[in-house]
Amino acid sequence: MTTIDRQPRIALSYQSGFGNEFATEALPGALPENQNSPQRVAYGLYAEQLSGTPFTAPRHANRRGWLYRIRPSVRHEPFRKLRDGDALTAGTPNQLRWDPFPIPSKAVDFIDGVVSICGNGDPAMTAGIRVHVYAANRSMTDRFFYDADGELLIVPQQGTLSVRTELGVLDVEPGEICAIPRGIKFRVEVDGDVRGYICENFGSSFRLPDLGLIGANALASARDFQTPVAAYEDRDGEFDVVAKFLGNLWTARIDHSPLDVVAWHGNYAPYKYDLRRFNAISSVSFDHPDPSIFTVLTSPSE
Amino acid sequence: MTTIDRQPRIALSYQSGFGNEFATEALPGALPENQNSPQRVAYGLYAEQLSGTPFTAPRHANRRGWLYRIRPSVRHEPFRKLRDGDALTAGTPNQLRWDPFPIPSKAVDFIDGVVSICGNGDPAMTAGIRVHVYAANRSMTDRFFYDADGELLIVPQQGTLSVRTELGVLDVEPGEICAIPRGIKFRVEVDGDVRGYICENFGSSFRLPDLGLIGANALASARDFQTPVAAYEDRDGEFDVVAKFLGNLWTARIDHSPLDVVAWHGNYAPYKYDLRRFNAISSVSFDHPDPSIFTVLTSPSE
Amino acid sequence: MTTIDRQPRIALSYQSGFGNEFATEALPGALPENQNSPQRVAYGLYAEQLSGTPFTAPRHANRRGWLYRIRPSVRHEPFRKLRDGDALTAGTPNQLRWDPFPIPSKAVDFIDGVVSICGNGDPAMTAGIRVHVYAANRSMTDRFFYDADGELLIVPQQGTLSVRTELGVLDVEPGEICAIPRGIKFRVEVDGDVRGYICENFGSSFRLPDLGLIGANALASARDFQTPVAAYEDRDGEFDVVAKFLGNLWTARIDHSPLDVVAWHGNYAPYKYDLRRFNAISSVSFDHPDPSIFTVLTSPSE
Amino acid sequence: MTTIDRQPRIALSYQSGFGNEFATEALPGALPENQNSPQRVAYGLYAEQLSGTPFTAPRHANRRGWLYRIRPSVRHEPFRKLRDGDALTAGTPNQLRWDPFPIPSKAVDFIDGVVSICGNGDPAMTAGIRVHVYAANRSMTDRFFYDADGELLIVPQQGTLSVRTELGVLDVEPGEICAIPRGIKFRVEVDGDVRGYICENFGSSFRLPDLGLIGANALASARDFQTPVAAYEDRDGEFDVVAKFLGNLWTARIDHSPLDVVAWHGNYAPYKYDLRRFNAISSVSFDHPDPSIFTVLTSPSE
Amino acid sequence: MTTIDRQPRIALSYQSGFGNEFATEALPGALPENQNSPQRVAYGLYAEQLSGTPFTAPRHANRRGWLYRIRPSVRHEPFRKLRDGDALTAGTPNQLRWDPFPIPSKAVDFIDGVVSICGNGDPAMTAGIRVHVYAANRSMTDRFFYDADGELLIVPQQGTLSVRTELGVLDVEPGEICAIPRGIKFRVEVDGDVRGYICENFGSSFRLPDLGLIGANALASARDFQTPVAAYEDRDGEFDVVAKFLGNLWTARIDHSPLDVVAWHGNYAPYKYDLRRFNAISSVSFDHPDPSIFTVLTSPSE
Amino acid sequence: MTTIDRQPRIALSYQSGFGNEFATEALPGALPENQNSPQRVAYGLYAEQLSGTPFTAPRHANRRGWLYRIRPSVRHEPFRKLRDGDALTAGTPNQLRWDPFPIPSKAVDFIDGVVSICGNGDPAMTAGIRVHVYAANRSMTDRFFYDADGELLIVPQQGTLSVRTELGVLDVEPGEICAIPRGIKFRVEVDGDVRGYICENFGSSFRLPDLGLIGANALASARDFQTPVAAYEDRDGEFDVVAKFLGNLWTARIDHSPLDVVAWHGNYAPYKYDLRRFNAISSVSFDHPDPSIFTVLTSPSE
Repeated sequence: MTTIDRQPRIALSYQSGFGNEFATEALPGALPENQNSPQRVAYGLYAEQLSGTPFTAPRHANRRGWLYRIRPSVRHEPFRKLRDGDALTAGTPNQLRWDPFPIPSKAVDFIDGVVSICGNGDPAMTAGIRVHVYAANRSMTDRFFYDADGELLIVPQQGTLSVRTELGVLDVEPGEICAIPRGIKFRVEVDGDVRGYICENFGSSFRLPDLGLIGANALASARDFQTPVAAYEDRDGEFDVVAKFLGNLWTARIDHSPLDVVAWHGNYAPYKYDLRRFNAISSVSFDHPDPSIFTVLTSPSE
Repeated sequence: MTTIDRQPRIALSYQSGFGNEFATEALPGALPENQNSPQRVAYGLYAEQLSGTPFTAPRHANRRGWLYRIRPSVRHEPFRKLRDGDALTAGTPNQLRWDPFPIPSKAVDFIDGVVSICGNGDPAMTAGIRVHVYAANRSMTDRFFYDADGELLIVPQQGTLSVRTELGVLDVEPGEICAIPRGIKFRVEVDGDVRGYICENFGSSFRLPDLGLIGANALASARDFQTPVAAYEDRDGEFDVVAKFLGNLWTARIDHSPLDVVAWHGNYAPYKYDLRRFNAISSVSFDHPDPSIFTVLTSPSE
Repeated sequence: MTTIDRQPRIALSYQSGFGNEFATEALPGALPENQNSPQRVAYGLYAEQLSGTPFTAPRHANRRGWLYRIRPSVRHEPFRKLRDGDALTAGTPNQLRWDPFPIPSKAVDFIDGVVSICGNGDPAMTAGIRVHVYAANRSMTDRFFYDADGELLIVPQQGTLSVRTELGVLDVEPGEICAIPRGIKFRVEVDGDVRGYICENFGSSFRLPDLGLIGANALASARDFQTPVAAYEDRDGEFDVVAKFLGNLWTARIDHSPLDVVAWHGNYAPYKYDLRRFNAISSVSFDHPDPSIFTVLTSPSE
Repeated sequence: MTTIDRQPRIALSYQSGFGNEFATEALPGALPENQNSPQRVAYGLYAEQLSGTPFTAPRHANRRGWLYRIRPSVRHEPFRKLRDGDALTAGTPNQLRWDPFPIPSKAVDFIDGVVSICGNGDPAMTAGIRVHVYAANRSMTDRFFYDADGELLIVPQQGTLSVRTELGVLDVEPGEICAIPRGIKFRVEVDGDVRGYICENFGSSFRLPDLGLIGANALASARDFQTPVAAYEDRDGEFDVVAKFLGNLWTARIDHSPLDVVAWHGNYAPYKYDLRRFNAISSVSFDHPDPSIFTVLTSPSE
Repeated sequence: MTTIDRQPRIALSYQSGFGNEFATEALPGALPENQNSPQRVAYGLYAEQLSGTPFTAPRHANRRGWLYRIRPSVRHEPFRKLRDGDALTAGTPNQLRWDPFPIPSKAVDFIDGVVSICGNGDPAMTAGIRVHVYAANRSMTDRFFYDADGELLIVPQQGTLSVRTELGVLDVEPGEICAIPRGIKFRVEVDGDVRGYICENFGSSFRLPDLGLIGANALASARDFQTPVAAYEDRDGEFDVVAKFLGNLWTARIDHSPLDVVAWHGNYAPYKYDLRRFNAISSVSFDHPDPSIFTVLTSPSE
Repeated sequence: MTTIDRQPRIALSYQSGFGNEFATEALPGALPENQNSPQRVAYGLYAEQLSGTPFTAPRHANRRGWLYRIRPSVRHEPFRKLRDGDALTAGTPNQLRWDPFPIPSKAVDFIDGVVSICGNGDPAMTAGIRVHVYAANRSMTDRFFYDADGELLIVPQQGTLSVRTELGVLDVEPGEICAIPRGIKFRVEVDGDVRGYICENFGSSFRLPDLGLIGANALASARDFQTPVAAYEDRDGEFDVVAKFLGNLWTARIDHSPLDVVAWHGNYAPYKYDLRRFNAISSVSFDHPDPSIFTVLTSPSE
């Protein structure tokens, strides 16, 4: 198979909708038609289920996908500890403020460019969030990342990110936000300096909020969310997979790119959203409503 | 005891809040302090519980009041059928429109001035509504009304109503709405021609809607709802109580005014609301939200 | 605009998924990109919202679509009664059986070919079902049908139906089932004798059941449901729209085909499903599980 | 403005009801009538919303108030650590008992007089409680306290407390209990030795329990709860605000008394309850019911 | 097989508990041990499932039993209408009272001795109740009854009933109550005059109420409910089965006694309860609690 | 009273059903008939309630029992720390595997033979599990154990355990599983080498899962669960009670066997289940369902 390499930036196509049951293939016929796990998949691909919720979650909350890939995802060497997580101070009753974080002067990729700021909860309790900032200036080329602790909501402030995930490629520019589900591997390519914010969500996946009296339209519209089409790399070599697990970073050697998913279907996938599509609602009489009226996505606590 | 008669219109005082636990007395000390049902109530009043929900409703939905009155409410002669309910046509798929209803040329009070327009559901199933219009030109003096089928939401279009209920007096003018709970007796006084709409609600009592993302403020504010203070009539004579029961009107003779409640406490009471206090919310970007955004009160179906 | 007429049967293309947020246009650019209801829609189309649930339904149950059509849907003459609904006998404690219904000998279209068999509940209570059979031998050409009482689940037993709806065209053959939501207009074309069953569902729309312990796969798979792409007729002439409303049939003259929706987006749409895709689950030890294990779709009662 | 100082003890007046939508003003017209946050508030007061729940909590659980105060509440110097929280031992399987705690021999105010006894849960998880005792002999004069970790339920055993809060003054004597919501500032004045218990509740606010089969009356009655009327201090000087935050005590300098709220409305306020008003229910046949039958207030866990 | 005939009254033995998973057999080994529906059941019995709820009800509400009987229950002749249901008047707003009903002077069994008094709801909606009285003086010998519309709660006022059901025999005397689930066949034997009340429950089966603050004990205790052990009749002959179906009575000929269940297991069964075992709870301070505090069984509406 | 000693193994009898309201007595008349807590219990026994849930849990989740015992359970000396809990490593992203654990070479009973392997959650949060293995070769004779942190699900891999609990005796062999509720004391007798697994459940008690579409039968059947009948030891002497409390082991001297419960009733009791009775459900078409389809018991998290 041939490698799909990073191309000069051209407009990517996306699938529209939020939480849809998507189906996409980068090679014709790669997606099995009548079942999920046939004995022989086209092109000799391996079928794997990726679960985003317990199997038994109610259907409207159930998230899973079926991935058809060139090599099984378990084929890698053991993980070893890369770096301890930043211990977050318990905080003070004072209000926090911080200056813009500098772009690093030496070469730094997206993984090394992340600094943790604050948070609450605990990934071991699958509750709470961490707030990070990132500042980087070179692409991840031979290493990949996944977050076993939570979902990543990335908010670029400067510079466009090309987020190449197992399920396809997202170009995310300032004004857009991007969510990468727990456990999905990706690498980030950049064209110069990038900087922005990350909300790491240990709880249930972000979803569109119930609108209640606001009605069936307004705020963020489901059809404005964009999910990538299947795209894959067929690369052998010496790579690293970096994982965040219970707050620490771990790394494992791997002899091929894990971004080798040729086709997939399901509703557990990364997506992006252009904040300029948001239909803002506010008072037209007097006073201001509470800022909850500007909610794009929500991860409800119990 | 002396009669409190209808006075020249002066500004009434009200208790503020929606669904509050109110406590009010027209004579000092009429309200028992330490319990609901003492063996001897001050002034020789009778203690009666008025239940708006089953005893076992969860507290936030539970509605009941304790009334302290001059005579027991069961003291009246048997009911006899006054008038059969208007049979409502099942309707057509065509859209309905109607012209303004004329003010009657002869003397008509609030009870006789009601015409039923349309509806759904069934009072026997405690589900659905009826829409009526009223047009009247004289006060109810010697008769009283209560609706055993549902709650009445009155929307004056022309003329102010003085609604004298068991729990106190409400002056309701165009621009205001007024709700009278199921089973509470009242008479309506008018100063000339009056006309307006009635929504009769067979289901659970109107409540303020959950606001969700709109936040803790906006739309109708709880503190803008006005509930009467205790006021009573101590009148003997020949009166009629008219009841709406399973769609029909019944009437019974009674030898005193049933508006003889001197003190009461609880959260099951009539109230009014000035629609000009409504804080409207709408899109400030593009498109219109659905009309649910203008909800003042709601009676959720199952 | 030019008419899209019924063609010799060729394979139609569909959108895959159940309850997805679909977006489809029969003419390029007909679908507004940034909003639902712009002041000027491309091609001079009219934007209309079609609500399948109250505006305020929770998001996972909320069903609505935006339709962009050549003429406003309200443009038709008043409805008049066409036929009273078949009175269904209350039934007996005996078990029902019936022989196959004959194909009619004279020319009969899908509307006239429907016979009601049994049922429960009441469309006015939005609860219950009716079971009908249909047997027809000619296409509906100049008339259209919609059901204001419920959703239609059509199960062909003999002959393929070409169901031409406002939202697109579905070819449904024996072994497949097809659902048409409440209020969506359609006409049925046939190539010879057709016969089958209809379940008319007054309750909440059919949905995929929660699978519980069965897990995230098995039974009917969301991606096997097929929803039509946008297709329209631009036809003037003398047509009839037949509506079922509270059990009776009504008809109204209309001067154009109502199947004039050029583009639409949303999650309230007809679909079909091939029952051969169903992944059956059963005991592999002993005894038989209850037949609920073979549920394809469900309309949960309260 | 003139100072309202601590007066010789006279009977205070209170607002009655639990969780009512209260409205109270210490100066006439201080409370805006038509909105919450006008551009100009009477007397030049500052409008502030105080949230006791997330903005989006369902209405029956939503707690918030609007406070109209002389100076903005954010005007103070940064907090610095005052004292680390008492580390609570994890406990043993043995049953705990303790002797009465001694009144301190030197001058000690309410803040310094608190000793932590036991607990569970964690304020960072907003779950669990801590049990403290207090023993003091002088008033807090130039310092104020608020608890960012939870709500305080104070149970005096000896001596009356005059609890002067932002929302008004409560006199609490043995036999009464008093609740101060999370985040509300107060100082405690005493007339001699005082001693008692504190339950610090990290979870959702105390509420009246659902009564279920017990019905709409009995146990603690909503109308017996007493909430203060607005009262304020207009004092400049050198003061300290002490805060409990994630188990530790912090302190900040402030140049005025924060008890400067002249008017407020809402349902998030301190209250007291006289336990002698509790209507006890028990078996009249045989055996004893479980002690849950004597619940006054409850903070339900998930 | 030999007949088990009605014996001189001796103390029957019962299984204790409410809603337990019972298992009982009148002949040793009649109950299959490892499965519900083996190909060959001992003694050549037929295995039948009797469903009291939809198959898919949550486990704590799910009610069903497996019956092992001598002949299949479907073996009978068609039903024909026996008697139209008593039309219940819609009622008046007046309060109802009635004198004791007379014991009939001619021979009347339990079926013919039932008179309907009042009610609400509708069996076709599986909601509501009917109140009947019965007065009889002879045993049902050659006919049997089942109620397809609802569950029967029988409250004897005079005379003991021997209720011989498919699942066993219950002797019910004044002071006791007895419930027979929907669809279970029985005949009633009497020793003289009997009279009493019947509550026919169209809704969900009676259950023990949640006790809430009352705790884990008090009111009716689960272990005081008594369910019969398996007992059967092996009788051939000319019998009638009378069924109540949608308010009317139907009858069918049958050539054997349907009380031929030799063994059964499950949680859908008749039971009786001695009201003297009820542990009453009431106020020990002041006032009376609402009468809901005396609830024995409840059939919750939605 | 005489001692019931460990006998040569004979078949024990059990009560059948899951979560039934059981009632059992080892001496005739030991169980009070009309109430739970009479002033004088037969044989001079002490009545004690054992609560498995808060008093106020809804009835279908409420678990409690009444125990009638020879001596009060509080009669023992204070606990002292026996051993700190094994600190569980936080784990790695690598997959865990382990070899069979060896049977110890020296004499080791069930308490000393337990080794902790992994886990999540926290007993102080009443959430999560620990996985342990046990390997032992001698009986617990003079010491007893209870787990204050959670419920124990024991899965023997080698050797039969005789689990002598306060509520009776269970013989558990490989192929069977056994659950012992939180707080119930027991000792384990063995006849040679034993080895197996323990799942310690800090959350809510294991229950049978809801079956949903699977219907009212299949998977584990309630009637196949076996709960012991009452059995007791009346032994004086020098014994130890070992308790697991917040992860640590504590021990206290006691002068009699705590297995002295002569009679009990309720629904909070140990039980065993033979896994060979499990009715497996799987796909009969294609693909495999998720392994959740093989659930025997579940402890739902929130």
